[in-house]
Amino acid sequence: MKPLTRIEHFLAEAISQGEAPGCPPKLMGAVRHAVFPGGARVRPQLCLAVAAACGDDDPELSNATACAIELLHCASLVHDDMPCFDNAATRRGRASVHFAYGESLALLAGDALIILAFQTLAVAATHSPQRLPALLAMVASSVGMPYGAVAGQAWECEPRINLRDYQRAKTGALFAAATMGGAQAAGVDPTPWRDFGDWLGEAYQAADDIRDVVGDPRVLGKPVGRDVALVRPSAATELGLEGAVAYFDQLVSRAIEAVPECSGAEALRTLIRDQSERLVPKASTAEFLRTAAV
Amino acid sequence: MKPLTRIEHFLAEAISQGEAPGCPPKLMGAVRHAVFPGGARVRPQLCLAVAAACGDDDPELSNATACAIELLHCASLVHDDMPCFDNAATRRGRASVHFAYGESLALLAGDALIILAFQTLAVAATHSPQRLPALLAMVASSVGMPYGAVAGQAWECEPRINLRDYQRAKTGALFAAATMGGAQAAGVDPTPWRDFGDWLGEAYQAADDIRDVVGDPRVLGKPVGRDVALVRPSAATELGLEGAVAYFDQLVSRAIEAVPECSGAEALRTLIRDQSERLVPKASTAEFLRTAAV
Repeated sequence: MKPLTRIEHFLAEAISQGEAPGCPPKLMGAVRHAVFPGGARVRPQLCLAVAAACGDDDPELSNATACAIELLHCASLVHDDMPCFDNAATRRGRASVHFAYGESLALLAGDALIILAFQTLAVAATHSPQRLPALLAMVASSVGMPYGAVAGQAWECEPRINLRDYQRAKTGALFAAATMGGAQAAGVDPTPWRDFGDWLGEAYQAADDIRDVVGDPRVLGKPVGRDVALVRPSAATELGLEGAVAYFDQLVSRAIEAVPECSGAEALRTLIRDQSERLVPKASTAEFLRTAAV
Repeated sequence: MKPLTRIEHFLAEAISQGEAPGCPPKLMGAVRHAVFPGGARVRPQLCLAVAAACGDDDPELSNATACAIELLHCASLVHDDMPCFDNAATRRGRASVHFAYGESLALLAGDALIILAFQTLAVAATHSPQRLPALLAMVASSVGMPYGAVAGQAWECEPRINLRDYQRAKTGALFAAATMGGAQAAGVDPTPWRDFGDWLGEAYQAADDIRDVVGDPRVLGKPVGRDVALVRPSAATELGLEGAVAYFDQLVSRAIEAVPECSGAEALRTLIRDQSERLVPKASTAEFLRTAAV
């Protein structure tokens, strides 16, 4: 099974664990809406790629780790899109959850997804229960306080904000969880995998900032120009577009250098090169800069 | 250490795990506001009482289970109080979290508390990692989909609602998690402990409905009359006050009968009798009924 097919399959299985007759139907609808159809599934793919590079001796646990990370990511999108934050009407090319189901169900769908993420991990740890405490604590810290995604989002409520701390927590932490979690699920020490994830997270955030300036909302499936409109910190507004692209390239290089030596290292480096070109296509940013300069 | 002191101590320790320099200060404030000062800490006390009755051979894990359940309860209060649900300005005698910190931080504080609950459990499972998968899955299912607290809350978004399903999920599930979790943390089969928690949860919900009619908001620390104002299902509105009190007494009796035989059974029964009198004092409901009849 291809990694992406494997991810969709296990996400569907995880979601159906939470569904049963007697569950409020609108909540089930809102949760499905938040997860399917998905985006690029970058984090779970990364997690499975690292697990594969580390031997992947417990695929049930690596699948669950990848799923858990994607469910937590989906939860953060649902809550970030709500009126008290971005008030985004669209996501992945269609209505955001709160727009389709209302605020109350968006709030609960996000909560349900966070809970389901941890439940998915716990249920899958029957073969290797001794791996669960550290793996679960690591995944939780990547989304919680003090330095996880929720803390990152909370910087938007502070009067002063450091761009690097903000992005590291809001985006980077879950990338580091993907690389470290892939290793941990395979019974390998996650520490050497942290930097790889950290650099990728920063690169991904920079790419997102760039796409917020040059992207086509029809392709991205969400509105653009939000960082400027919401006066949100962004690499593109801080460094200018050309500076942000150079910064992105630098971060990708650092990520590639940070891949720990292992049998699957070269395959991982190739994956990162391909994904980074997909994220920030050289041709279209050059074209944008040329047109903007005219 | 008395159970209540032990609970406050471990809650403070759990919260401080999530705090560190570099964490957004307002988020830390909102999370503390949600947990301290607490209410009666009914669920964690129940959890520790069952753990004690089951031998409590890993107090680190039973403390963490009790804490996790209370953190999940606090999270649900924060989110339920938000404008898209109850829009409650007060809780536990002072401003609700969204009223004190704003909606964005209330949303994130609830998320952070859910995450912290699972993290607390994972971190405490180092001595008995083999107990973690089932314990964590059980706690997660008590708050998630299809029949946990979040699902219960989601019934408020449906056009039709069954009072028993609603209350069982919204309140009962976390009580069952408290009794079952106390047993599981002590390495004991949780199955016989489910009914005890289920009946207690239903009794507690009925008490809450009664107090929403007869309670003094200064004593309760939250507004009363909300069930009628929000057209919310309630035992008191469905059965009348006298009927609701009889229903409550019946539920307490069933809970007491459901205590599994064990060395601590009699102590548990006494605890339940004391707590039920504290929740619905016979004297004051009789007085209310007498005055209302005049």
